[in-house]
This record gives sequence, structure tokens and C-alpha cells, in this order.
Amino acid sequence: MNAPLRIAIAGLGTVGTGVIKLLDESGELIAQRGGRPIEIGAVSARNRDANRGVHIDRFKWWDDALALAEDPDTDVFVELIGGADGIALQAVMAALRSGKHVVTANKALIALHGVELARLAERHKVALRFEAAVAGGVPIIKTLREGLVANRISRIYGILNGTCNYILTNMEATGRDFHAVLSDAQAQGYAEADPAFDVGGIDTAHKLAILSSLAFGCETDFASIYIEGIENISAHDIAVVGELGYRIKLLGLASMTEHGVEQRVHPCLVPLNRPIAAVDAVTNAIVVDTDKAGRIVLEGPGAGQAPTASAVMADLVDLARGHVHPAFMVPADRLKPMSPSPMEHHVGAYYLRLTALDKAGVMAAIAEDLAEEGVSLASIIQRGAEHLETVPIILVTHECQESVMKRALARIAAHDSIVKPPRMIRIETL
Amino acid sequence: MNAPLRIAIAGLGTVGTGVIKLLDESGELIAQRGGRPIEIGAVSARNRDANRGVHIDRFKWWDDALALAEDPDTDVFVELIGGADGIALQAVMAALRSGKHVVTANKALIALHGVELARLAERHKVALRFEAAVAGGVPIIKTLREGLVANRISRIYGILNGTCNYILTNMEATGRDFHAVLSDAQAQGYAEADPAFDVGGIDTAHKLAILSSLAFGCETDFASIYIEGIENISAHDIAVVGELGYRIKLLGLASMTEHGVEQRVHPCLVPLNRPIAAVDAVTNAIVVDTDKAGRIVLEGPGAGQAPTASAVMADLVDLARGHVHPAFMVPADRLKPMSPSPMEHHVGAYYLRLTALDKAGVMAAIAEDLAEEGVSLASIIQRGAEHLETVPIILVTHECQESVMKRALARIAAHDSIVKPPRMIRIETL
Repeated sequence: MNAPLRIAIAGLGTVGTGVIKLLDESGELIAQRGGRPIEIGAVSARNRDANRGVHIDRFKWWDDALALAEDPDTDVFVELIGGADGIALQAVMAALRSGKHVVTANKALIALHGVELARLAERHKVALRFEAAVAGGVPIIKTLREGLVANRISRIYGILNGTCNYILTNMEATGRDFHAVLSDAQAQGYAEADPAFDVGGIDTAHKLAILSSLAFGCETDFASIYIEGIENISAHDIAVVGELGYRIKLLGLASMTEHGVEQRVHPCLVPLNRPIAAVDAVTNAIVVDTDKAGRIVLEGPGAGQAPTASAVMADLVDLARGHVHPAFMVPADRLKPMSPSPMEHHVGAYYLRLTALDKAGVMAAIAEDLAEEGVSLASIIQRGAEHLETVPIILVTHECQESVMKRALARIAAHDSIVKPPRMIRIETL
Repeated sequence: MNAPLRIAIAGLGTVGTGVIKLLDESGELIAQRGGRPIEIGAVSARNRDANRGVHIDRFKWWDDALALAEDPDTDVFVELIGGADGIALQAVMAALRSGKHVVTANKALIALHGVELARLAERHKVALRFEAAVAGGVPIIKTLREGLVANRISRIYGILNGTCNYILTNMEATGRDFHAVLSDAQAQGYAEADPAFDVGGIDTAHKLAILSSLAFGCETDFASIYIEGIENISAHDIAVVGELGYRIKLLGLASMTEHGVEQRVHPCLVPLNRPIAAVDAVTNAIVVDTDKAGRIVLEGPGAGQAPTASAVMADLVDLARGHVHPAFMVPADRLKPMSPSPMEHHVGAYYLRLTALDKAGVMAAIAEDLAEEGVSLASIIQRGAEHLETVPIILVTHECQESVMKRALARIAAHDSIVKPPRMIRIETL
């Protein structure tokens, strides 16, 4: 057996601890498969004495991740600290500069600094790898970079955040509203204490930025992603769209259009008969539309200690096997700048929910606004009263351009009889 | 850019022609991504002058695949001839012996001779790769060998033959019988003129042998796979199981049991609410149950010129990137012998279709046979008459051991009132 691959782990939270456990349980098997043992030499974390359920006395301890990054006995620096900037970024840069491979699960870091870090890695002839940053144990990064390497990709989309999918699934199952389900999810550990990154769509957008860069050969461009979270989805929306034959999912979607790359994260109405509509709870699913291999779908647990550790280990075994190639498939300098297509160019159908005064002429006025802007309607549901004086009106449009829809909505919102800001959810036929 | 990876293609049928077309269309992109151009140097085929829609004059021509295998200007021998033995096997052995990497789409070859070829490849320090042998453009081999490398797999199963899935889907959609749909599929090119390999389950078993070896770290053992095809599935079965909440799929399944590895290929009743029940037409889907990454599902077109060429090219790009490791993840000499669990040990529920004389006491006799053997019933459907004198009886059992089921069936078949051999289809709850 060859010499071990020596790794240093920065960050001993859920994932870092998971990597230690995985090597404790399956280290021998992994060594056989990878052709070399993978050995943890040194670690660092905020708190040396936290109760993690694993012994860390056997590893060299560093108080400082930056010092750990420069540990001379390390081949691979495993960054599991998190956060796009600060110590994670500094430590990864230090590790690359000192000629160490880097493996990270940090989606924010890669979404925001991935290209610059890839360039640094190439300069030092080391690898930067981040399978664990997207979709937990589902090997989507490897699939894009290697399995589908001969393909041009026209679109990639998926359910990339388990917390949101859990909340939406649970809202549907229980009929409860967003905030009630979120509190429960927090209590059960499915949602962070500060849920803004998850439910606000930021986490999905970080992952989409990475997938989009790999799929289209462009630099990551998080800033150009259109982002909307699930905070405004109501129990009423979920019930109504079910009757219309849809389910609401938070999707990240990136597609190559005539105007450039359209990258967007928002709740979508997905037809019930589409496979992605059936992806429940914390499962992630990614659909890749390719020119040669056709439509490829990957699905599996999108987070969690063991799945994420499995992905980190896949990267480490690749390095043990000597696989070093550009992080984003082509050298960083050959990535094209992202040419984003603004949301105004987006074309799709829309679900609208209006709250109107219950009086004659309201529907006629709305219909006239839509008709004058060139938006045609596929269906209208008006039924029952929300309060004594208002009624909910549900509209489903045919496809139109987003800019047109926005103009029509602004006109509708301006009527005195529309008493709340209209809600709009995009429909994806997929 | 580095020196090209020089390949020789033996066999210019659908897939071989597809590889040429793919390099013509996307060669530059592939070179950027792989870091080196991939160049076809030489080719061989049965007929030099066949009309393939691509020019082959630009390549060196060999009449003989064996001579091509020893072409001194070749880095990788691409075997796309097909067939488990004969010229394909000889040429692959010759190529490995002369120090060339081999890429093949030949599932029969790998299922029957994979381990011996892997050993030969290791001895000559070259790679043997076969991503295209299973599930077309779906990167399942890479996923098992690399993406899930840190996992112990307890079960792998899937829809691995597009022809069978197309026929079953079409039988359900049209209500027609097996032979009518098969003839249509042949006319449309979805089934071979000699369909025995596909509809008889052999093709699925070849693929399962490969997946099973990778999943469990065992030598391939095609001979121990239990195989049943779809030839005896009737339109009546398909209609009845639909009412019972099932769909019939031909699955290949391999699982680790207390008795060893159970490998089987047969039609299955799959509950309609399982994702695999929704996989239609020529799509393939593979489900992998792992200890760390959870349940991972891959899905996509399982055959066809472009998807298969995409998989061949993925292997070639890996070789261009210098990735050479054991074909079955661990060195061939470390693979354990397969320890097969015989079908008698299989435990599952069963669907039975009996054709009985329409007279008193038949049902009681059947029920008594089942009870005495210890098989308990979940449901019974007896309805209408098939002919003047016979009735179909549909039974669904609870779980029992296959040997028990077989004994009970033999008793039932022995009654004079049972006028046709009983039909049995296994139920997979998955």
C-alpha cells in the first residue's frame, strides 16, 4: 500500500465530525478502494473541548485554522468552517499558497470566490474540490465535470435546499402556515436558528451559482442570480395550486437563452405529474438537460452529517488516486465571464393571487388590465369570501414575458379595489 | 495544449459512428475540458464501405480488429464490436497486452470476462473502462467507483433495459399483448431482430453483474444470477395489477443478505407510488442504497447513439486526464469471490394468476394448499369468466420464502381444476 494521504480538518461541526467518524468506521475499506490510506494528521476548531462523540486527542491540534492551513505535514486542507469570507477564505488561500490541495463543503465560499480560488490552485498546481458543497452525498459536481464532460448543457435545475423542501412538504401535508412549520422545523433541527439563508433562497442560489458555472463554462456570478424565497407562500396558495394540478417547490434554475444565462431561484408551480414534484422532504434532485446524454436526473439526501462526509471523502479519494484537474473543468482563465439574462426577459406562465373588494366590476377591470398589456388568461378561480368584504381571486396566465407581467401587475395593484399587494408565483412546466 | 490522446475504434456500428460524430461536433470543447485533444487515429469494422453518415477515409483502416488492437500509434483501444467472446475478447486482450488502455461499451464482455480483463490491465499498468456498458449516458459506473467510494452498499437495483421498459410501458398504454407490441418495437427500431437478449432478461443480467461487482467488491458472477424475462407477461396481468395499485417493471436487483449476495432479474410488481414505477419508455433508472450517502437515484436515457457515445467519451476524457485505477475499484486480486444467495432463500410477496375450472370447491382447495404450506393471502380477485368453463383467479400473498411459495404452487398446479400452469410474479415494495 502506498503512503497515506495526510489531511488536516478545519472546523469540527457536524460535517467535520462526520468525516472523522467516517474514517473511523470505513477507513480500511476506503484505503483499499483509493489505493492509499487517508489519515487525519491535524485539526482545528473553535472549541477544543466540545462534546463531539469522537476522540480528537489523537490529532495534532491547532487553535488557528490559518496555522493549520500551513501545517507542513499536510497534503490536503479540508475546510469545513463555513462562511463566504473571513477565516474560511483566508485559510483556504493560505493552504493553496502553501501547495496543499483543498477540499471544502463551503458553497458560499465557492459561489463567491470559487474562480479566484481555482486560479490560485492552478498556479500552485494543486486541486480545489467541492463535491460536498452541492446536494450532500449526490455526486452532481463529479457528474458535470466528468460524467457529462462531452455534453453541452442547455439547462440545469433542481431542488437544492432540503430545509425549504421540508417546509413546503410539511405545509402541504398539515395545511399549516409557513411560520408555524418553520418553528417546528427549527425545533427538530431541520432549520437553522437563523433561517434566512435557507428560506430566503440564498443557499439555493449559492449552489446554483456553482452548478451554472460548471454547466456553462462561465465564471460564477452569484450577484446576477434572481432570488426569491418561500417566506410569502401561504397555506392557501398550497391548497389552491393542488386543485390546479400543481405543487409548489423552491427551484434553482439556470438555462442558456438567446439573451445569455438566466439564473433564478424562486418558488415554482410544478405540474404534479413531473418527477420533481414528487421529491419530498429533505431530498435534493437535480435535472440536467444535455445535447448528447439526454436528460439526466440525480436524486438523494441533500444534507446531513453522513451524506456530506461521503461527498468530502469522494473528493479525498480522488486526490489519493492522484486526480488533479481544474476546479471548474476548464482552467479558470478560460472560463467566460457570465453573461446574465435579466429577469425582464424571462418568459413563463404565472399564478397570481389577488385580494379584492367583493364588489361589481373588479374582475372586469383586472381582465382589462391584463388584456391591454397582452397577458392572456388560462384560468380564473374566484370562490368564497376571505373576510366579510374581500374575495381571493386566483389567476393563471398563459406564457408571457416577465416585464409584461410586471407592468400588468402594477396596473392591477393600483386599483382601489385591490386591497393587498398581489402575489405572483411563476409556473414551470419543465 | 498537451499531446493528443490517440484512440483506435474497433466496430463502427451505431455507437462507433456516434463516437466519431461526437468528436466531429464537440472535439474542441472536449479538448478544452480534458486538457488534451482526443484524436481518432485508426478504425476497423466489418464493412469499410457501409454508409454511416461520417467520413472514415481520414483514419487509418485495419481490416482486422486484432491488428488494430496492436496499432503502435494508439493510446486507447475502443472496443465497440460487441459479443462476450470471439473477436471482441481477443482484441481487448491483445490491446491490454500491448500496453493500451481499453474503453468498451460491451456489457456481455465485462459481465463474463471483466475480472480476468481487469487483472490483465493491472498487470500492464493500463486502464479498463466501461461506463457505456450500463445505462447509456447515465454515469452510474463512475458514481459507484468514485462518487460513492466511501459507502457500503446494501442494495442496488434498477430498470436497466430500455427495450423491455418500452414494451411494458406500451402494453400498458395500449392494452395490447406482448407479441404485438414487440413486433411494433422491432419495426420502430426499439427492439433487435433477435430480441431474446433484451426481453429474456439477459441484457439486464449482464449489467446487473457489473453493478453488483462494483457495489459489493466481488468478482462478477453472471452464472449465479436468477433470470426471468417478460415474455410471459400478459395484457391481463398488466390491467389487473394496475387495479391493485402496481405497475410491472423488469428490474435487476442485487442485495447483500445474510445468505450472501442475491442477484436476480425478473418482472416485478412495483407500487405505483414508488418513483421507479414512473420510469417510462426507454429511460433507465438505478437506485443505490448506501450506508452514508443514503438512497441515491440516477436516471436518464439508457441507450441510443449519442448517450452511449457520451459515456464512451467520459471514459476517454478521464484517460486524457491521466486517471488510471482498478476497473472494479479495488485490484482484481482483492475482489472476493461472489457468494451467491440462491433464490430459494428469497423472501417476498407474490402475485399469482391461476386459470381454474368454474366449479365449486376450487377456491377452497387452493386456499387449503396455501395455508398448509404457510403462505398467507393479502387479497383475492375472482371475477368474470375467461372462457365458458374457466375463471381467472388472482391471488396476492403476504411475504414468504420463495421455496415455500414454489412448494405451494406445485400443489396448486397439480389439481385437475387448474387448467394452465400458474403464473407467478414477484412483488417488490422497494
